[in-house]
Amino acid sequence: MSPEPITPRSSAIAGGPPASTAASVVMNRCDELATHSALPDGLIERVYLSPQHAAVNARTGQWMRAAGLTTWQDPAGNQCARLDGHRQGLPALLLASHLDTVPSAGRYDGILGVLIALAVAERIAASVPAADRPVALEVLAFGDEEGTRFGTTLLGSRAVAGTWDPNWWTLEDADGVTLHDAYLAFGLDPAAVGAAARTPAELVGYLEAHIEQGPVLDEAELPLGVVTSIAGARRFQIVVEGAAGHSGTPWARRRDALAGASEAVLAIERIARGDAGHPTGLIATVGHLVVFPDAVNVIAGRVEFSLDLRGEFDDARDTAWLGIKAAMTAMSERRGLQVTWEQTHSASAAHCSERMRGVVAAGIRSTESAEPDAAAPPELFSMAGHDAMALAAVTEIGMLFVRCAGGVSHHPDESVTEADVARAIDALEAAVLDLFEQYRAEAVPVGAEGSDSP
Amino acid sequence: MSPEPITPRSSAIAGGPPASTAASVVMNRCDELATHSALPDGLIERVYLSPQHAAVNARTGQWMRAAGLTTWQDPAGNQCARLDGHRQGLPALLLASHLDTVPSAGRYDGILGVLIALAVAERIAASVPAADRPVALEVLAFGDEEGTRFGTTLLGSRAVAGTWDPNWWTLEDADGVTLHDAYLAFGLDPAAVGAAARTPAELVGYLEAHIEQGPVLDEAELPLGVVTSIAGARRFQIVVEGAAGHSGTPWARRRDALAGASEAVLAIERIARGDAGHPTGLIATVGHLVVFPDAVNVIAGRVEFSLDLRGEFDDARDTAWLGIKAAMTAMSERRGLQVTWEQTHSASAAHCSERMRGVVAAGIRSTESAEPDAAAPPELFSMAGHDAMALAAVTEIGMLFVRCAGGVSHHPDESVTEADVARAIDALEAAVLDLFEQYRAEAVPVGAEGSDSP
Repeated sequence: MSPEPITPRSSAIAGGPPASTAASVVMNRCDELATHSALPDGLIERVYLSPQHAAVNARTGQWMRAAGLTTWQDPAGNQCARLDGHRQGLPALLLASHLDTVPSAGRYDGILGVLIALAVAERIAASVPAADRPVALEVLAFGDEEGTRFGTTLLGSRAVAGTWDPNWWTLEDADGVTLHDAYLAFGLDPAAVGAAARTPAELVGYLEAHIEQGPVLDEAELPLGVVTSIAGARRFQIVVEGAAGHSGTPWARRRDALAGASEAVLAIERIARGDAGHPTGLIATVGHLVVFPDAVNVIAGRVEFSLDLRGEFDDARDTAWLGIKAAMTAMSERRGLQVTWEQTHSASAAHCSERMRGVVAAGIRSTESAEPDAAAPPELFSMAGHDAMALAAVTEIGMLFVRCAGGVSHHPDESVTEADVARAIDALEAAVLDLFEQYRAEAVPVGAEGSDSP
Repeated sequence: MSPEPITPRSSAIAGGPPASTAASVVMNRCDELATHSALPDGLIERVYLSPQHAAVNARTGQWMRAAGLTTWQDPAGNQCARLDGHRQGLPALLLASHLDTVPSAGRYDGILGVLIALAVAERIAASVPAADRPVALEVLAFGDEEGTRFGTTLLGSRAVAGTWDPNWWTLEDADGVTLHDAYLAFGLDPAAVGAAARTPAELVGYLEAHIEQGPVLDEAELPLGVVTSIAGARRFQIVVEGAAGHSGTPWARRRDALAGASEAVLAIERIARGDAGHPTGLIATVGHLVVFPDAVNVIAGRVEFSLDLRGEFDDARDTAWLGIKAAMTAMSERRGLQVTWEQTHSASAAHCSERMRGVVAAGIRSTESAEPDAAAPPELFSMAGHDAMALAAVTEIGMLFVRCAGGVSHHPDESVTEADVARAIDALEAAVLDLFEQYRAEAVPVGAEGSDSP
C-alpha cells in the first residue's frame, strides 16, 4: 500500500527521515518481527521469556543502536534504549509499548507502538542536538503485556513501575514452568527484578502509541485519536455447583449447573449492557467456561466460568458487579444451586493527564495541515488494557490511538495502513517536541505531575 | 443391611434358595464385580472390550456354570448362559442386562439386573425339571450398554438384536483405538459379529430387571414397579458460530457465541419442560458444552454443545425439536450468529408388550402377600435407555424396576436394599413361571408376539 502524500509540520521542523520513509520502515519491521513466532504456518504467538522474546529483543536492540541510542535489556527482560539529554542522569520521557502477543495474534498490537516510538527517537536523535534536549528520551519494549504465558498481564511494565508482586514467582505456564524458573532459563536473575523499577523522580512522563482495538476511528474515517482513560478491569472466577445425574432425571429433581450458568451469562450481559436509553459504559465478557463432567448423557454437576468486567468509571463497574452477584444469588436459590466467586484481578481505571492529552491532541492537529478546519481529534476511551496503566503508578501517562481496520485485534486480520503510521509518527514526534518545549520552560523537570492511579 | 422377613408365594412354589439368601448373594456379587475397575480408589469404570470386561465375564461365567447353566461368550463379547427346555433347540426367554458402566459409576446400574436374572435362573434350574420347561431360559450379560468407550450405546444388545451397524467399526475410543481393533485385542473376530444376532424365531421374549434411575418408587415408598415404555432419545451436536474478539469490543460489534449458546440452553429447557399446567412428558439435557478459544479476555467465537432430548412419545419429542430449532434460529438472527446442528443418535420409544407388563405386574403382586389390599404395582415410564430397547427389534420386551435411593444413578452413591432385591428376585421368578404356564398352554411357542419397535 503506497502512502498518501503528507507534508506534516513536524517533520519540516524536526528533520530526519521523512515520515513516509519512516512509516515504510516501521511496516517492514512489523512484518519482520511477525516471523519470530512459536506457531507454524505464519500464525503469530510470542510469549514472555521465550526464545522468540529473546530474538525480537536482539533484533530491536540492533535497530535501537542504529538509531543512535544506548541499549540494554533490563532485569525483567524488557528491551530498553536511551537518548540522553543535555547532560547524563536527567529524568526521562518514556515512549513504549510491548513486543509480546496473544496466541494467533496480529502483527501490530504493541509492536507498532514500540516501532513508532523508535522511529520518533531516531528522528529526534538526528534533529535535536543533545544540548537542546531538556530531558532524556527512552524507548522501552516491554516483554509481557498480554499475560499469555503466565495468565497475569503487564508483567514487563509492572516491573518498570515497581509494582512487581513476589507472589507471581510461583505462577506456572501451561507446561508447569514457574515464572521463577523461566527467569533463570532466560538468563535473568529473579532476585534482581527490583532493579528494573523506576522511581517518579527518574521520569517526566510516559507516552504510548497503540492500535485502537476498537472501531471508533475506522467508522469515523479518522487516522488518529487521543486516549482519555483506560478501563479498569475486574476479573472473577465463578463456580456454579449443582448435581450431576442421569439425563433421564425428571425436571423437578434436576440441579443443572449449566442451565444455571447460562442464566448467569445472560444476566451478566443484561446488567453490564444496560439498555439503549441507559448505556452503562461497561463491557462484560464470559470468555472461558468449562462443564463437569461434560458428557452428553449426564446433567452438568459443576460449571466454572470467567467474568471480565471493565468500564471507564470504577464506580459504575463495581455497582454492576453488585447487581450481577444479586442476580446469580437469586438464580441459584431458585434452581437449588450454589454459586461462588473469587476475584482474580482488579485494576483501577487509569486516566491520561491533562498535559499528555494536550500534547497528543496538538500533535495530531499538527498532521492535519491540509485540513485546517478539521474538528478536534477524537477523544477515545480504551476498553482494552495497556502498559500505560502500569506506568500510571509512577508518572503521568498519555496515549495515541491509531486506526485499525474494522476494529479487529487479537486476530491475524489485524491491519493498519502505512499512511496512518506516517501520521502517527509525525503526531508522536510533535508531542515529544511540544513536551521538550514545556520542560525547557519549566527549567528543571525532576518528576511527574502525579498520577491518577497511585 | 439385614433383609426384612419375607415369605413370598413364588419361592414357596419354586423352591431353590430362599429369596433372602439369594438376595444376599446378589448383593455380595455386586460388591465383587465393583472391584473390577479401571479407576483407582474404589471408583468404578468398566468399559466394553477392556481387561475389566474380560474379568467380569469370566467371573460371571463361573457363577452361571455353578447355577447349572451352559455358558459361552458370544461374538460380540456378551457373556451368555442357557438352561434348555424339555428338548434342545427350543426358543428362549431372555433375562438380561449389562455389566459395563459409565465413569465413576455405581455398582447396580445393569449389574443388578444380570445378577437377579442369574438368581432366578438358578432357582428355576433347581426347582423346575427340564421336562416341565416349555422354552429355554437364557441369561445374557451385555458388554456395552452405556457407550462409555466408543460413544455409541447398546453395542452389546444391538449385536444380539441383529441391528449392528458396520459403520461402527471405525468408531474410536479416547486413545484412538477403533472398535475393530478393540475386537481383535479382546480376541474377537469382527467378521463374526453377525453370529451374535438372534432371530425372532429363536426368542419368545425378553425380561430385564433394572434400578429405576429415578425417584418415583423411592418417593412412593414402594420397592418395585412395572415399566410401560422406554423413552426414545434423539441426540444432536449443535454449533454456534460468532466471532472471537478482544474482550474490550463494544456491545454493538460483538457476536458472542457463548451468549447465544446460553440463550439456546435456556430455550431448550423452557420448550422441553413446558409449564406446570402443560407438562410435555419430555426431558432435555445439555450435558456437554465447549467454548473456543476459551480465554478470559477473548469473546467466544464458537461454542459446541450436545442436546439429549427424550420422551415417552416420539411425536411430542419431535415437535419440541422443531420448536427448539425455531428458537435457536431466531436467536442466531437477532445476535448475528450462525447455528448449525447434526443429529448423532435417534431411537424410537420402545413399548413393553401387554403380556410382559401383565406377568411383571402379577409377579410384583405375588410378593405382596402380607399386603393383600395393596394397590396395583406402579407403572413407570423410563426416561433412561436400556438394553430392552435394542431387543424390542426382535421380540416382545418387559422390564421390572427396582427402587434406588433418591433416584440416584451414574454416581458412586447408587444404592439399593437387600430386601428390595429379594422381592425383585421373587417377582421376576414369578413372572418367568407365569410365562412358562402361558407357553405350555400355547403348546408350541416358536416366536414373539411381535414388537412395537420393528
